[in-house]
Amino acid sequence: ITHIFETHRNEDYVIGSTDLARRSGAKIYHGKSDVMRFEYGNFVTDNDTFEFGGLKLKVITTPGHTFESISISLSDTGFSEKPIAVFTGDTLFVGDVGRADFYPDQAEKVAGLLYDSIFNKLMPLGDHVILYPAHGAGSVCGSGLASREFSSLGYERKYSPRLQLSRDEFIEYKINEHHYQPPYFKQMECANQKGADPLLEIPKPIPMTVDEFAEAIGNGMQVLDVRSAEATAGAFVPASLAIPLNMISAFAGWYLSYEKDIGLVAEDDTDVDHAVQFLLRLGYTRVVGYLQKGLVAWEVSGRDYDSIRTVYAGVIKERMNNHVNYTLLDVRSIDEYQAGHLPNSTHIYVGEILKMIDEIPKEKPITTFCGSGQRAIIAASLLRQKGIENVEVCLGSMAACKKIGCQTVTEDGSKKAA
Amino acid sequence: ITHIFETHRNEDYVIGSTDLARRSGAKIYHGKSDVMRFEYGNFVTDNDTFEFGGLKLKVITTPGHTFESISISLSDTGFSEKPIAVFTGDTLFVGDVGRADFYPDQAEKVAGLLYDSIFNKLMPLGDHVILYPAHGAGSVCGSGLASREFSSLGYERKYSPRLQLSRDEFIEYKINEHHYQPPYFKQMECANQKGADPLLEIPKPIPMTVDEFAEAIGNGMQVLDVRSAEATAGAFVPASLAIPLNMISAFAGWYLSYEKDIGLVAEDDTDVDHAVQFLLRLGYTRVVGYLQKGLVAWEVSGRDYDSIRTVYAGVIKERMNNHVNYTLLDVRSIDEYQAGHLPNSTHIYVGEILKMIDEIPKEKPITTFCGSGQRAIIAASLLRQKGIENVEVCLGSMAACKKIGCQTVTEDGSKKAA
Amino acid sequence: ITHIFETHRNEDYVIGSTDLARRSGAKIYHGKSDVMRFEYGNFVTDNDTFEFGGLKLKVITTPGHTFESISISLSDTGFSEKPIAVFTGDTLFVGDVGRADFYPDQAEKVAGLLYDSIFNKLMPLGDHVILYPAHGAGSVCGSGLASREFSSLGYERKYSPRLQLSRDEFIEYKINEHHYQPPYFKQMECANQKGADPLLEIPKPIPMTVDEFAEAIGNGMQVLDVRSAEATAGAFVPASLAIPLNMISAFAGWYLSYEKDIGLVAEDDTDVDHAVQFLLRLGYTRVVGYLQKGLVAWEVSGRDYDSIRTVYAGVIKERMNNHVNYTLLDVRSIDEYQAGHLPNSTHIYVGEILKMIDEIPKEKPITTFCGSGQRAIIAASLLRQKGIENVEVCLGSMAACKKIGCQTVTEDGSKKAA
Amino acid sequence: ITHIFETHRNEDYVIGSTDLARRSGAKIYHGKSDVMRFEYGNFVTDNDTFEFGGLKLKVITTPGHTFESISISLSDTGFSEKPIAVFTGDTLFVGDVGRADFYPDQAEKVAGLLYDSIFNKLMPLGDHVILYPAHGAGSVCGSGLASREFSSLGYERKYSPRLQLSRDEFIEYKINEHHYQPPYFKQMECANQKGADPLLEIPKPIPMTVDEFAEAIGNGMQVLDVRSAEATAGAFVPASLAIPLNMISAFAGWYLSYEKDIGLVAEDDTDVDHAVQFLLRLGYTRVVGYLQKGLVAWEVSGRDYDSIRTVYAGVIKERMNNHVNYTLLDVRSIDEYQAGHLPNSTHIYVGEILKMIDEIPKEKPITTFCGSGQRAIIAASLLRQKGIENVEVCLGSMAACKKIGCQTVTEDGSKKAA
Repeated sequence: ITHIFETHRNEDYVIGSTDLARRSGAKIYHGKSDVMRFEYGNFVTDNDTFEFGGLKLKVITTPGHTFESISISLSDTGFSEKPIAVFTGDTLFVGDVGRADFYPDQAEKVAGLLYDSIFNKLMPLGDHVILYPAHGAGSVCGSGLASREFSSLGYERKYSPRLQLSRDEFIEYKINEHHYQPPYFKQMECANQKGADPLLEIPKPIPMTVDEFAEAIGNGMQVLDVRSAEATAGAFVPASLAIPLNMISAFAGWYLSYEKDIGLVAEDDTDVDHAVQFLLRLGYTRVVGYLQKGLVAWEVSGRDYDSIRTVYAGVIKERMNNHVNYTLLDVRSIDEYQAGHLPNSTHIYVGEILKMIDEIPKEKPITTFCGSGQRAIIAASLLRQKGIENVEVCLGSMAACKKIGCQTVTEDGSKKAA
Repeated sequence: ITHIFETHRNEDYVIGSTDLARRSGAKIYHGKSDVMRFEYGNFVTDNDTFEFGGLKLKVITTPGHTFESISISLSDTGFSEKPIAVFTGDTLFVGDVGRADFYPDQAEKVAGLLYDSIFNKLMPLGDHVILYPAHGAGSVCGSGLASREFSSLGYERKYSPRLQLSRDEFIEYKINEHHYQPPYFKQMECANQKGADPLLEIPKPIPMTVDEFAEAIGNGMQVLDVRSAEATAGAFVPASLAIPLNMISAFAGWYLSYEKDIGLVAEDDTDVDHAVQFLLRLGYTRVVGYLQKGLVAWEVSGRDYDSIRTVYAGVIKERMNNHVNYTLLDVRSIDEYQAGHLPNSTHIYVGEILKMIDEIPKEKPITTFCGSGQRAIIAASLLRQKGIENVEVCLGSMAACKKIGCQTVTEDGSKKAA
Repeated sequence: ITHIFETHRNEDYVIGSTDLARRSGAKIYHGKSDVMRFEYGNFVTDNDTFEFGGLKLKVITTPGHTFESISISLSDTGFSEKPIAVFTGDTLFVGDVGRADFYPDQAEKVAGLLYDSIFNKLMPLGDHVILYPAHGAGSVCGSGLASREFSSLGYERKYSPRLQLSRDEFIEYKINEHHYQPPYFKQMECANQKGADPLLEIPKPIPMTVDEFAEAIGNGMQVLDVRSAEATAGAFVPASLAIPLNMISAFAGWYLSYEKDIGLVAEDDTDVDHAVQFLLRLGYTRVVGYLQKGLVAWEVSGRDYDSIRTVYAGVIKERMNNHVNYTLLDVRSIDEYQAGHLPNSTHIYVGEILKMIDEIPKEKPITTFCGSGQRAIIAASLLRQKGIENVEVCLGSMAACKKIGCQTVTEDGSKKAA
Repeated sequence: ITHIFETHRNEDYVIGSTDLARRSGAKIYHGKSDVMRFEYGNFVTDNDTFEFGGLKLKVITTPGHTFESISISLSDTGFSEKPIAVFTGDTLFVGDVGRADFYPDQAEKVAGLLYDSIFNKLMPLGDHVILYPAHGAGSVCGSGLASREFSSLGYERKYSPRLQLSRDEFIEYKINEHHYQPPYFKQMECANQKGADPLLEIPKPIPMTVDEFAEAIGNGMQVLDVRSAEATAGAFVPASLAIPLNMISAFAGWYLSYEKDIGLVAEDDTDVDHAVQFLLRLGYTRVVGYLQKGLVAWEVSGRDYDSIRTVYAGVIKERMNNHVNYTLLDVRSIDEYQAGHLPNSTHIYVGEILKMIDEIPKEKPITTFCGSGQRAIIAASLLRQKGIENVEVCLGSMAACKKIGCQTVTEDGSKKAA
């Protein structure tokens, strides 16, 4: 490894390029803009070219997602100087385009830049050029991403919904698109502008006995429980934040403080290691320990533990039919909610539960609810953490309710059977 | 691998020697008795000797655990013809001796044989001889086993509790010792006498969609849920048998039928594979499938699921103090129960729950209880399976109750603070 | 896995589809022709369609490489019914097209079919369609393959050398193209037409002592030495066939008999396992054993071993300058040889050494020579096996000679400095 | 990990305890003496006791191998306060006792201390106590070690050859015993007295192109070739030091300078990583790179390479019979040589080849020779490095010669057929 190219300054994780550079001796290259200036690495611009054996890379500036965003075309010079593929960073995805909401005061300008980058810089490379974007489906950087890992410029030009719009329609669409910006983005932007401190070794949290774990909690340690939603529902350390392991990347940055220690509760040591890695990528370096032998150790210690009742869709439907008085708290994104929700449900996005906690009526039972139940368990653990007593979680949530034919409403009030 | 020695016919798992023989071309050797005659392999007896390079193995017949049990001494002939070590099978363990309860009509005789094998056949090899038994701690074959993996004959002679008894005391002790014999033992005895059918490949259960899984249940498939106790408490497929993964070997043989298909619910594919292996060793070859994408798939399908309330030790103590009327069902072994249990608790061994189901009062709430909560979740799932509604599980159980100072009683009725 | 598609009947390895079908329960699908009729699986033809979630596969018959060859297009129906990609089997590669030499009496016809399949069946799918061929670089199925793993139809249309030809030029080119057909192809064709016998388990060759190994050689076992060229040059079991591990797939089928046992000499057990797998794919199931502890065991047994002198390029150049009288035996393909070889070198393709052995003058020293030395060690071991005494190998071979400026000649006799 | 016990200051490798302490937070404990004082960790002495759950460790000072050597007994207090096992460091091995040659001016004293430690401190623990030594067979710390990993005190007392001697005989034996002390021992003693610098990460040598590798050699880099003896014989980079991978620990410390860079030639990247680890344990931190793509890259570069002829035992025997005039250079230890060597062979220990290079007659062909050929390849590479032209290696060496009945002589001149 001799060259590291960054297509743009990332907001959603700590980029590992400084570490890779340290280990490999490689040099780092990225774009430049007046708005944000990298404090490490080397700057490249249009037509800068790099050759490796029979391959040639050429830089194309493609501002829009961020001002300094670049794409890089790839040629196999044994066949042609013309490119066979292009790496598009967060400019052009498979089935969608990049977010353009990071400069809200220049929203129209950046949306236009993004459109021009796609249509004036990338598309002229040719329909036959293979497209390698920086993200696949599941990213916080675009909701319409296809689950294919790559595509071709021609296919996207013909079939990607966003690329069927005129320039004006495109700008209109991007200005009105809604994206959440978790608080940790600020931390990531800062780290990635300066260049992250290299990690000499992955920190290995120490196994803590129940007494040590409890004492650390007493001293302010945040508890993150990364077990499954079902296991959390069954029993958990009081006041834990529950985020199932594979949701850490998307949600931990909403709740965890960078200023306090973190202690983990996990199914096994492998999951501890994975959790540490996910948290490191979000810049959390203070994972000091984990509960040795897992929750069982806590249980047999005689300490109190918490649990959350689970309800299935059939119960929700019956309550609806019987007009039971309780709060069905739908914690999906506003887009999902507006596209179809249960009648009389209350909406607060899972990332904003703590901010909106005072809005939630506490005298009635609360059932947390999302797409499948995974975000609902996060929400339920937050409510319990804040001392709200009567909390349930609906595992299955919207997906299950649709399957059994619950009525849904869309935002303009029209009802339909799911 | 050229030789396979079996120290005795096993009752608690399918021995893999026929498979190993098929793959390696090795020959199988074991002891002989009038009571049980192996239908495969070769017979050996006292002083039969096998040499491998500078090592020499010599057979010592040591009846007692079973009539055909043998031990095998090991010499490093570069140093001496005398043995450096002895493999004792289930005759002599570290800290205990083998079970002698398999011939209840000859209990005194076999206990005497066991004593004589240990003192007349093994001990004369010398205090300095290293002891390699066939089981470590955690086996169903002896409860007093030390957690060291091996010992020396001299150390056992001096410090093993059973070996401090006179011959008469030893026989008396063994006659009165209590061991459970799960129903699958019969199946294992039969398989191991004939020689197990070789497994050409580990059967790989197929991933089943929720619909396929539910249909199979309708056709009589047994559901085995191998997730953690907490996850089962949170949510499970109705009527499942819940046995946490690492308890399958010890408990699945009590409940699962060899005549019906088995479907698994597990945390992930790795756990499915482990469960299949554990079940195969118990002779269960009909694991036909597992719930694809785990319990989440069941939840989002809109189907009903079951759950079990969890209670911690503090609640149990408070109920005791307040004389709450409910059934605390202690499912530990009779030995554990007699050594100390909560007052007013009801005892039924976890293996015998189904046999004794009619003895359990159903009008009151039932809280299942064991040493730590792991057997209690098995019991709770069985009660739910049999349609008993008001079932809780005490995760933490006796260990937790002792920690918080619950009063306990021993069998003769005397009370003591734990 | 529910469906297995075969794009064509393979000649160069045993296809694993029957085994995969047995393990997964999947069904097998392939094309049909009058010339060769599969004796297993299901037939598909143009427009047969298969849907999997949001993906759709559609069959396109593309005869040419073989008569029953098919391609399969892939659509992501969430975006369009039109294809995003096409699997082209051995019809269209990245940078080349498939071989068309399997029906020498119909050479012109099949070349034309291949051209039409590419231009009338595949290209109309559109430039933007991603191309997934069945082979990458290094295959015996095409020499011009790019080392990229996939491409797009448009890129190939514009830049693949073969696709720049007119239909007549294309046919002319294919008719005159030279491909070798190792003898094992016949065996593979037969196995793949009938459907290979499933492998219940990978056969594990047994470790053999030197005495056992030598005895087996006496009984006709073929010895295959898969160590590096350097290690073989240093010492090897007399009369071994030397093929470095990663060349087994391409070359073992030229020399090994299916009718005799095979014994391996390898660096370690991992290499034994890999060699067994490579040989199984060529249909060799009689790998009965390997030399335990490797060549060192043979050496310390006191038995004679063979070795081959190594010479570097500088020596070859000096001999050329001094007009030394010896045979420089160039064993590369005829295409490589004609494109540039050392003056006064003799050409015999490595696969045809045994057939041509009588043509080789034995009174002079022989130095085997190829592109880098890897095929030269195979050739050298064959010459030693046939009792030719004075054999050397040039490690480095043509690549090294070019680096130090040896003169080369092309086939029409013109000389040039390399 | 909370405690790290060092039984003595090691001479033959860099102890990793400081690194383990840094990572785990554990404390280090070791013995104390007037002769050598550790500059890190904590001192312990007789009867210092450490308890861990039901286990108890007790320190026993056992000077002899070194003055500060300790042993540590282990009790399983659930059974007895008396020990079940003892960790003896380098004091007592399985089948042998520790070296006592590190204080040559106090040879008699330390041999007596060692005897007393064994008979007065360890043996009184009882015959039944299991013995866990610090080394197994193959160590540079004792040549008579059994290949069993542990034993019992009683077995050693009865059957270990050294323990059958009287105190005087024992001292006499130890004083006259011959051990080699490679030059790197001094470096290790120093590092282990001070406490090794912790390694934050295993240094990863960089892949070097042939040109970079050759340039580094020009700048003084030492080349270490870790491939097999056969591969080295076939071809190697001129002036390399050849030490097969698994012999690095025992031999690299004789030849490599700590003051110069080291470049590796290996079969593959896995072997590079292993070589780096072996070298690090000897304190070599300057492994800067390795030859990318291995020796093949060197060969195809057109550069000269070296090779060494191999001869098998039959040739040696024939030369003996025909009184051929050449130097058969036996590089085994003096003990091995005296116990039986070929007539007319010359002895120089492999570790001392460079020191004795002037003693070797260069006008005659030289064949290097050892036990099996592995040390002979090291010696041959050293001779070539020093510019000696006519060098062969006898792969198989003494083991092979014995098998084919070569005559041998013992030191007092008597001949015998092997």
